[in-house]
Amino acid sequence: MSTPAKTTSQKPARGVDLWGGHFEQGPAPLMEQINASIGFDKRLYAQDIAGSCAHARMLVKAGLLSATEGQAIQDGLAKLKAQIEAGSFAFTAELEDIHMNIEARLTELIGEPGRKLHTARSRNDQVATDFRLWLRDAIDASDRLLQGLQASLLARAEEHAESVMSGFTHLQAAQPVTLGHHLMAYVEMFGRDRGRLRDGRARLNECPLGAAALAGTSFPIDRAMTAAELGFTQPMANSIDAVSDRDFALEFLAAAAIAAVHLSRLGEELVLWSTPQFGFVRMAEDFSSGSSIMPQKRNPDAAELMRGKSGRIFGSLIGLLTTLKGLPLAYSKDLQEDKEPVFDAVASLQLCLAVAAAMVAGMSVDTARLHAAAGVGYTTATDLADWLVRAAGVPFREAHAIAAQAVRRAESLGCELAGLALAELQAIDRRIGAGALEVLSVERSVASRTSFGGTAPAQVRQAIAAARARYL
Amino acid sequence: MSTPAKTTSQKPARGVDLWGGHFEQGPAPLMEQINASIGFDKRLYAQDIAGSCAHARMLVKAGLLSATEGQAIQDGLAKLKAQIEAGSFAFTAELEDIHMNIEARLTELIGEPGRKLHTARSRNDQVATDFRLWLRDAIDASDRLLQGLQASLLARAEEHAESVMSGFTHLQAAQPVTLGHHLMAYVEMFGRDRGRLRDGRARLNECPLGAAALAGTSFPIDRAMTAAELGFTQPMANSIDAVSDRDFALEFLAAAAIAAVHLSRLGEELVLWSTPQFGFVRMAEDFSSGSSIMPQKRNPDAAELMRGKSGRIFGSLIGLLTTLKGLPLAYSKDLQEDKEPVFDAVASLQLCLAVAAAMVAGMSVDTARLHAAAGVGYTTATDLADWLVRAAGVPFREAHAIAAQAVRRAESLGCELAGLALAELQAIDRRIGAGALEVLSVERSVASRTSFGGTAPAQVRQAIAAARARYL
Amino acid sequence: MSTPAKTTSQKPARGVDLWGGHFEQGPAPLMEQINASIGFDKRLYAQDIAGSCAHARMLVKAGLLSATEGQAIQDGLAKLKAQIEAGSFAFTAELEDIHMNIEARLTELIGEPGRKLHTARSRNDQVATDFRLWLRDAIDASDRLLQGLQASLLARAEEHAESVMSGFTHLQAAQPVTLGHHLMAYVEMFGRDRGRLRDGRARLNECPLGAAALAGTSFPIDRAMTAAELGFTQPMANSIDAVSDRDFALEFLAAAAIAAVHLSRLGEELVLWSTPQFGFVRMAEDFSSGSSIMPQKRNPDAAELMRGKSGRIFGSLIGLLTTLKGLPLAYSKDLQEDKEPVFDAVASLQLCLAVAAAMVAGMSVDTARLHAAAGVGYTTATDLADWLVRAAGVPFREAHAIAAQAVRRAESLGCELAGLALAELQAIDRRIGAGALEVLSVERSVASRTSFGGTAPAQVRQAIAAARARYL
Amino acid sequence: MSTPAKTTSQKPARGVDLWGGHFEQGPAPLMEQINASIGFDKRLYAQDIAGSCAHARMLVKAGLLSATEGQAIQDGLAKLKAQIEAGSFAFTAELEDIHMNIEARLTELIGEPGRKLHTARSRNDQVATDFRLWLRDAIDASDRLLQGLQASLLARAEEHAESVMSGFTHLQAAQPVTLGHHLMAYVEMFGRDRGRLRDGRARLNECPLGAAALAGTSFPIDRAMTAAELGFTQPMANSIDAVSDRDFALEFLAAAAIAAVHLSRLGEELVLWSTPQFGFVRMAEDFSSGSSIMPQKRNPDAAELMRGKSGRIFGSLIGLLTTLKGLPLAYSKDLQEDKEPVFDAVASLQLCLAVAAAMVAGMSVDTARLHAAAGVGYTTATDLADWLVRAAGVPFREAHAIAAQAVRRAESLGCELAGLALAELQAIDRRIGAGALEVLSVERSVASRTSFGGTAPAQVRQAIAAARARYL
Repeated sequence: MSTPAKTTSQKPARGVDLWGGHFEQGPAPLMEQINASIGFDKRLYAQDIAGSCAHARMLVKAGLLSATEGQAIQDGLAKLKAQIEAGSFAFTAELEDIHMNIEARLTELIGEPGRKLHTARSRNDQVATDFRLWLRDAIDASDRLLQGLQASLLARAEEHAESVMSGFTHLQAAQPVTLGHHLMAYVEMFGRDRGRLRDGRARLNECPLGAAALAGTSFPIDRAMTAAELGFTQPMANSIDAVSDRDFALEFLAAAAIAAVHLSRLGEELVLWSTPQFGFVRMAEDFSSGSSIMPQKRNPDAAELMRGKSGRIFGSLIGLLTTLKGLPLAYSKDLQEDKEPVFDAVASLQLCLAVAAAMVAGMSVDTARLHAAAGVGYTTATDLADWLVRAAGVPFREAHAIAAQAVRRAESLGCELAGLALAELQAIDRRIGAGALEVLSVERSVASRTSFGGTAPAQVRQAIAAARARYL
Repeated sequence: MSTPAKTTSQKPARGVDLWGGHFEQGPAPLMEQINASIGFDKRLYAQDIAGSCAHARMLVKAGLLSATEGQAIQDGLAKLKAQIEAGSFAFTAELEDIHMNIEARLTELIGEPGRKLHTARSRNDQVATDFRLWLRDAIDASDRLLQGLQASLLARAEEHAESVMSGFTHLQAAQPVTLGHHLMAYVEMFGRDRGRLRDGRARLNECPLGAAALAGTSFPIDRAMTAAELGFTQPMANSIDAVSDRDFALEFLAAAAIAAVHLSRLGEELVLWSTPQFGFVRMAEDFSSGSSIMPQKRNPDAAELMRGKSGRIFGSLIGLLTTLKGLPLAYSKDLQEDKEPVFDAVASLQLCLAVAAAMVAGMSVDTARLHAAAGVGYTTATDLADWLVRAAGVPFREAHAIAAQAVRRAESLGCELAGLALAELQAIDRRIGAGALEVLSVERSVASRTSFGGTAPAQVRQAIAAARARYL
Repeated sequence: MSTPAKTTSQKPARGVDLWGGHFEQGPAPLMEQINASIGFDKRLYAQDIAGSCAHARMLVKAGLLSATEGQAIQDGLAKLKAQIEAGSFAFTAELEDIHMNIEARLTELIGEPGRKLHTARSRNDQVATDFRLWLRDAIDASDRLLQGLQASLLARAEEHAESVMSGFTHLQAAQPVTLGHHLMAYVEMFGRDRGRLRDGRARLNECPLGAAALAGTSFPIDRAMTAAELGFTQPMANSIDAVSDRDFALEFLAAAAIAAVHLSRLGEELVLWSTPQFGFVRMAEDFSSGSSIMPQKRNPDAAELMRGKSGRIFGSLIGLLTTLKGLPLAYSKDLQEDKEPVFDAVASLQLCLAVAAAMVAGMSVDTARLHAAAGVGYTTATDLADWLVRAAGVPFREAHAIAAQAVRRAESLGCELAGLALAELQAIDRRIGAGALEVLSVERSVASRTSFGGTAPAQVRQAIAAARARYL
Repeated sequence: MSTPAKTTSQKPARGVDLWGGHFEQGPAPLMEQINASIGFDKRLYAQDIAGSCAHARMLVKAGLLSATEGQAIQDGLAKLKAQIEAGSFAFTAELEDIHMNIEARLTELIGEPGRKLHTARSRNDQVATDFRLWLRDAIDASDRLLQGLQASLLARAEEHAESVMSGFTHLQAAQPVTLGHHLMAYVEMFGRDRGRLRDGRARLNECPLGAAALAGTSFPIDRAMTAAELGFTQPMANSIDAVSDRDFALEFLAAAAIAAVHLSRLGEELVLWSTPQFGFVRMAEDFSSGSSIMPQKRNPDAAELMRGKSGRIFGSLIGLLTTLKGLPLAYSKDLQEDKEPVFDAVASLQLCLAVAAAMVAGMSVDTARLHAAAGVGYTTATDLADWLVRAAGVPFREAHAIAAQAVRRAESLGCELAGLALAELQAIDRRIGAGALEVLSVERSVASRTSFGGTAPAQVRQAIAAARARYL
């Protein structure tokens, strides 16, 4: 059976240590394998220690610990943290999770005060607090990476505010746009992603600590104090909700999934633009790979992986939604399945964001091929229709039909629109004047799209300036 | 082949009508079947007409339509709206979608001004605008339904602020709580759902109109005006993003999926509590069903469906995420798959919310069975441990172990904790005094949980008052 | 609230009619809305009637109905079927579902025998039977459509067994292949899809009828007889499983999702190949659409939708998985959510299959552009390496490195490999002989790939013949 | 940024080693992080070596390697395998993946023959072969674990073939069944799971080796020989499909997801049955956990995790479906995302299967509580209706209504059906005779369900015998 390697457990005296002698038997080895979370929740060590420090300070203030006991706890936890970071702390699956590993070691280290630390709390509120703290940091780091990607896109957008290319709809040549304008679409997407993270962070930032197992506690604790110490805006309002809620993880995963959509779209375009057929860009060598068999290959592997990793992020989202579906209140062990999908999604998202920023910064752009493509596919047919509306007062629907006829004529002659003589055009509709010829160049087309948010270079520059002010 | 019935198409002169004669052939019947969206996007008629009215007024202001033309359009659209609402408007799949159905009919009705209406816009920005307007309304309606469910929960919570029941973790008896406290956990969940809808609404509320196909337009339009007329806070900043973005739909679906998790948990509990084994509540007859074969059955069908419909909402979310994954910019026809999942999720969510509010309001609660269950399963063992900490200065870990021994003793005697004589308890640990006996009643237990957010009735009443002020 | 329009219910005497007077109250309107399935399960009318006919014949044989009663039921059901197909049967939501609608009408029509029909069965086994029968037909129809698509691909593959094109990995030019070879990859994929449907059909094809509510029945029924009459291979072995199992729906949805992956890949390639940049194919006009604003557009909408509809099929799969997750046995009302995702997936899959077959048949292929692309991107560099292994005994890894140097040289000279003079090549490695020049043409490259399943036209023709024999 | 720890890379001379000097630069550190798969694909070492051994033997037979070279390769690979299994092989991310790690080390070890091994193959066909071999073993191991779970269920089913309990629909008391009968429903489910694995295994079991990069090869290889050596039934028919196809992984994940549904249903029932309210079973201590705060707790953690892990398996399925959606042929780097979801799903599925078998074997059943519950909730009302049909010739619908009245009468008297006097029953309908009283006991009810697959103990015993013969 292929199951993850597990930490061995020598002394099965679990009952005594963990649950006060209530059990006669230690767990079955299979049980330890499915039940123990230390393999992944040890990542929460810093948050667990921070939470315990805050809790202990509050217990001192509430008179539930003496100042001396409180100090012993602070000192002991500081030592354990140093040990963990030095790699000298031996985690054990027998103690199930990060909380018990730390508490048990603390008690070994400092004795009785360690046995008092768990007053007025439970692992249920403890793990919810730890996980929120961890995710809050991960959100902040993700936000900075999104900002970095925006900065990278903004720099290239500015460089190419006037680089004309073909805009596509349905991946067919549509109208000329500038590459800067195109890149700015991604700046907007990642800006919304940052907004979603920010809103989710605010909703996450309430403190479960003191909810205890589910009912609150009879000890005179100060939940507002621990909340404030840990940087939360307030304690959560309902103790049952505090230990059952995983909305914060779902909301992050949903935001990550939407960001992954954006990354997958960017990845798809980079892959496409790197083909010999498009040839718009070339990925830097240090973000490309070769082939074990084909000597000529330079593959945009990083862009492909950025696209492909959307799958695992969507999977993490749907996985946790499924796990939470239909669970009765309050805590159920199913909730232990909450961390791995979040850890994986955070790692995947952050890696892709960093890679995207570096790829965008490092890719070389072939402006000549961009420009050449801009004129292929009758991309200025709309400009002809618009000229008819503007200069000749033709209703748009009629103008659209006239321009379509011009396209058919050009197709049958095997030329682009600009290749049609004025006489040819006037044979289609006599209202077409010499002025119409002027709007058929891709530069004129682009320059004319001056509506707010449009692709005219002046608009693009304004948009860049506004985005810099807003996002950087 | 089982495919949905399609509207028949008599005149295949599609090219002329829709795309200005560019095509020689009308679409294949299969093409019409896969391509036409009128079967579902006719729901957007009111939004489409509102958008066209605003666009037309702006075109008048910009000098692109005369005042007379503008008025003809307003009047014509008002007539069409009345026809649609009277059921006398004949939609046709030949005209593909709601936009073309309305524009074509308008032109039949008012002639040339109809042919001018499409100046400076495209279906790409038009459909994005319509869909945002529709979803904005749906979000507002969902918010009101969430509020209604909160009101229903709050009323029952107040009624049962002191009704003691067993609180559960792992679905095992944990500690006594009150039913009011338990119901308030759901008030918190649905409150967060409202927050997510509100934040998503704010991000949605920017106007794509004027982005045209993707590049913006060369006509001197005023995007701020149309945005304001339609209640948007501002025009979208990038025209390519404006026609490619479906974040707003994804964000709504994600919020709906999280709300569906909450509804599924409530549904699970109502199903569970309705069993003969639990017997905590009884669903009203008008939300129950019988059996075609078993004469005695009263099944909580509505609660089950509320739980089961989480599936389709998750499915809608993952479906649209998948559809958007890896799409190049700007508009691709894949985006047409955006509406049905949102329509279905809105309908499912809203129906479940309304049903939940009515079920909670109408269910009868058996407080006697609730109370009886509260004392089963040694639910006050923690109180004994806490007493040892508080009254006898025993460290919590040690107190926990002593209480566990008391539980084992009671188990072996076949009684509850309160059934142990003081001597029995003192035989376990001599520090247990007579005062300890007093904390073993479920009422005392509940009353003692006075920490903020705890289950003490006084805390629950405060929480109810705060929630009323915040949410109703 | 936007909920689907519901059939109105005039007489709330539900209890008497459906559940034998057990209920005092009819359902709330909201309950009817969430509970009634007649809106979608009326599609099962033919299966429901077939199931009832078989059940009635068996009841006659078992002596539970007289021959006269049995005949009255057969005649009555035949009449109802005709009414339904003529559109003159009035379905009502008050009677909840297709089973009760038909049984109630039958009793109106023929009296007492109608009231005897439900002996020894329940709606639980009835709906499972109906749904299996419906899906069995849908699987058979899907299989035929898959076969049709294979036929379409085979025809084009044969036509283009020698049409050289660029093969891609990472969407980078890799090695020359033939279009016929490429299309045959899809024939294999759709062949596996047929295998999955076939295997799932065999597992589905057991009969739940006679499981009754969940426990079986005390009447002396003959389950083997009804199973055989309805074309099932045998009755299901466990009555609880018979009414709880929806594996058959999940297994179909999974097979449909995998087929949707294949369709999405084909759709992606058709979109890509239709771009001006690739220009490999051109979709037939009758499977293309234009633009409301851009007069020149010919968009591959059908191919895009075929790609995009993968989302809704994945969504249906995950939706039903979610709904079933964690349900206790036996029937729960959540199972009513099983039909709509299957109906939608069947319709989407079948439509896409039909569209794909027609698109592939109707597209025009530009063999000149295919051929031109085959030589771009140093696609025969591997042939040079292979030549070195074969003719000069160079180890492959070393040969690969030499060919890579040749590519670099050609890149720096701005030519293709075939443009390098022999002297240039020998300057890189003196073992390169004149014979090497001959392997650098795309035709030679393709012709040389004669390994089983390779792209050499002779191999492709053999593969076509084998696939015809196997699949058509 | 929280990304997984990466193996450090000292010498960035990647180009020379891997891709024949084509690249001037080594990869960026971020590139190595996103691109290298050695962190997870080293699990494939045994399969990779087996594939290379078979390939080398075939190259010898084809005259592409000398016998001496072939032997050197076999010996070298055997040494490397021993090193890997001894933990003395140093994997490096610089060499990207398992294939390059092994080939490079082999060449260090044996020199030139190592450089010849990659003749006529590519990593694209190599990884597809390795992954199929690995998954084939994982399927076989999963099948054995499913069989073990069936054996565990069969043993308990036999033990409880006559243990009467309440059968549920809608989690409401429905009809008496036996626990053996209920457990046999799961035997059927897991039997279907085995069938799905078996069918998927047969489809998987074709060999990609020799497809090379995508086009096949010009070397005179014998694909049938390598296929046979590796236990495949035949070589895959199309070389492009061979390197692009991941159906086998999807099909496994789909089968695993359906099995996870079954495990989640079993987990839900074990959780439910372990509550104080149901009390049907008690999990063994060694599959239970306690609480850090509540001294009395015995939580069914393993059953909960078995239920909750369905989420991650569904997530893996949807993740890989997403990743594959819309990929053009042939190999794209996105495909590298195929392994981790499969590895995780295999580990989760196998762990849950083993745990389930042990939990079922180890749980204690409280037959007294089972029996008591069987009579609660008027579970024999259907028996009364059936009696009326059978003994008094009442049509079933009418009999159902009479029985419903009897239930109402019993409810109003606060008794069970068996508590109604004959006179009470006859006051409802005079056709009810003394014989009817006899059918109201739960034993009689169960014993009467003698239809094939029904809950009568004799039927259950037959079903157990048949299942043993079929499955064990």
